[in-house]
Amino acid sequence: MIRTRLTERFGLAAPVVSAPMAFAAGGELAAAVTHAGGLGLIGGGYGDADWVDAAFASAGNARVGCGFITWRLAERPQALEVALARRPAAVMLSFGDPAFFAPLLAEAGVPMICQVQTLRHAMRAAEAGAAAIVAQGAEAGGHGDRRGTFALVPEVADWLAAHAPETLLLAAGGVADGRGLAAALMLGADGVLVGSRFWASAEARVSPAMHAAALAASGDDTIRSSVMDLVRGLDWPGRYTARVLRNPFTDRWHGREEALRAAAAREGPAWGAAFAAGDPERSNTFVGEAAGLIRDVRPAGEILAGMVAEAEALLGGGWRRSG
Amino acid sequence: MIRTRLTERFGLAAPVVSAPMAFAAGGELAAAVTHAGGLGLIGGGYGDADWVDAAFASAGNARVGCGFITWRLAERPQALEVALARRPAAVMLSFGDPAFFAPLLAEAGVPMICQVQTLRHAMRAAEAGAAAIVAQGAEAGGHGDRRGTFALVPEVADWLAAHAPETLLLAAGGVADGRGLAAALMLGADGVLVGSRFWASAEARVSPAMHAAALAASGDDTIRSSVMDLVRGLDWPGRYTARVLRNPFTDRWHGREEALRAAAAREGPAWGAAFAAGDPERSNTFVGEAAGLIRDVRPAGEILAGMVAEAEALLGGGWRRSG
Repeated sequence: MIRTRLTERFGLAAPVVSAPMAFAAGGELAAAVTHAGGLGLIGGGYGDADWVDAAFASAGNARVGCGFITWRLAERPQALEVALARRPAAVMLSFGDPAFFAPLLAEAGVPMICQVQTLRHAMRAAEAGAAAIVAQGAEAGGHGDRRGTFALVPEVADWLAAHAPETLLLAAGGVADGRGLAAALMLGADGVLVGSRFWASAEARVSPAMHAAALAASGDDTIRSSVMDLVRGLDWPGRYTARVLRNPFTDRWHGREEALRAAAAREGPAWGAAFAAGDPERSNTFVGEAAGLIRDVRPAGEILAGMVAEAEALLGGGWRRSG
Repeated sequence: MIRTRLTERFGLAAPVVSAPMAFAAGGELAAAVTHAGGLGLIGGGYGDADWVDAAFASAGNARVGCGFITWRLAERPQALEVALARRPAAVMLSFGDPAFFAPLLAEAGVPMICQVQTLRHAMRAAEAGAAAIVAQGAEAGGHGDRRGTFALVPEVADWLAAHAPETLLLAAGGVADGRGLAAALMLGADGVLVGSRFWASAEARVSPAMHAAALAASGDDTIRSSVMDLVRGLDWPGRYTARVLRNPFTDRWHGREEALRAAAAREGPAWGAAFAAGDPERSNTFVGEAAGLIRDVRPAGEILAGMVAEAEALLGGGWRRSG
């Protein structure tokens, strides 16, 4: 049992939150993580209200939260209303200024978790009243920015200690096992947000072919790019790219963004159909550098239990190797 | 006292190696790190044999090693002969295939440390006979590649455990204090290679103006770029960029590499004169994202002692925070 300020404040048995991965993190995954003692978050993603409502329904009675892409939620706020009607354990906001939504969440009595990628955005999130800040490094799968987890987490920890000591800190980006959890605690985090490792779980809404592609990959085989956003016509702010597995699609278009933009009318539907079919070659597999640490697809509860047990052993002195 | 396989094999009091930073890591810094119980490495960099010889001389009787840029050393191997004549504690090779130099080092009985940025290069280094591999994340200052420290280190650790269990592993990139040292041990490393934090030491050959610029910076204020190589006419392989502080020079040229190449005859001498003068505005300050963790310039021995004391406290349970 690893107790931190995160487990105390949120009433958890483990300082582990599952990332609200768009499309992949439905109610089944969130519920499984919560049942195992962590906090599960539904991937509210691009703000499809019906999808969010159905995901909460499939989480059953489990106490779960929901995450959204902030800039998109500003265009489609109805999904937040749907989530708040479900009395979520927390709402997480990523990729945009959370200040607009903070009063709504405060009024609803729902803790606001803000994911950030820089110290400056962490400062803004703390000032907006975040209960917890997720410092996400560029190792992470899916959308993110440039800074790495290893130095970002302690830098945010230092700023919070001096200016917002009540605000919790979670580390994200590359955390896939007990080593990552233990390391995050050493760097000053109160817990971790885990994406890719739970993406590779039995409960995630991911195709067998994409799972197989990720299991076969090293972190070397991932790339940050914008091609999967351009092809979908998504209006992501320029600073954010997404980490995916390199594949024929990224090989063809990464670095040829203008050509892709020009071809989007043809390529967009093809990508969309391939993604819906779970095709890892003709669409994209959203997974981080932690792909190199993932060797099986297991139930999320087993993953979480293994992560905690490994971290406990390391924190108890198991990091020592002789030889 | 933190004992690991690194301290045992190299006879150190602390599992800390100072990075062989070109120009900044002379004999004074390397000797100070060795005297404090770590292993100091001279920055052999671009292979100036006279500079290397003088640096060893200024290290006095301290048992230090030396690091080189591999692709450059292949063009100017004489600097390695000079270093080997000094009976170095180790030779570190970065940025290129170490296989050519491995037999020379083995014959001289000098341990080969290989810095890598990907799993694939780690495999090649282990097969070439490296005594230790440095897994360097993109957070690092100076030259590097794209992968982050947090997931690269455990992935390399797993591969070494399965295929080359005698090979030591060091983490580099973002390690600047006891938190980073403790986290690296959790991730599976036997020790750390520390650049920026020792760059910000009294013994480093760095101008007061560059030190001041780094102390004022967040990790947010750094950038990976090639402009400092283009302007110098250095023939770096395309995959490697260098992390520096953003400044008027990077603002002007980053993203305009072809224009810089065309202007190199004029800009090159200006950059060189500014770098020699220690000007952080008109040349570049080579420091990593750990800049955000560095708040003073102190003697290297104090830095190392503080790092070890903080890591010991964390490893003993000091990571627990209540509240």
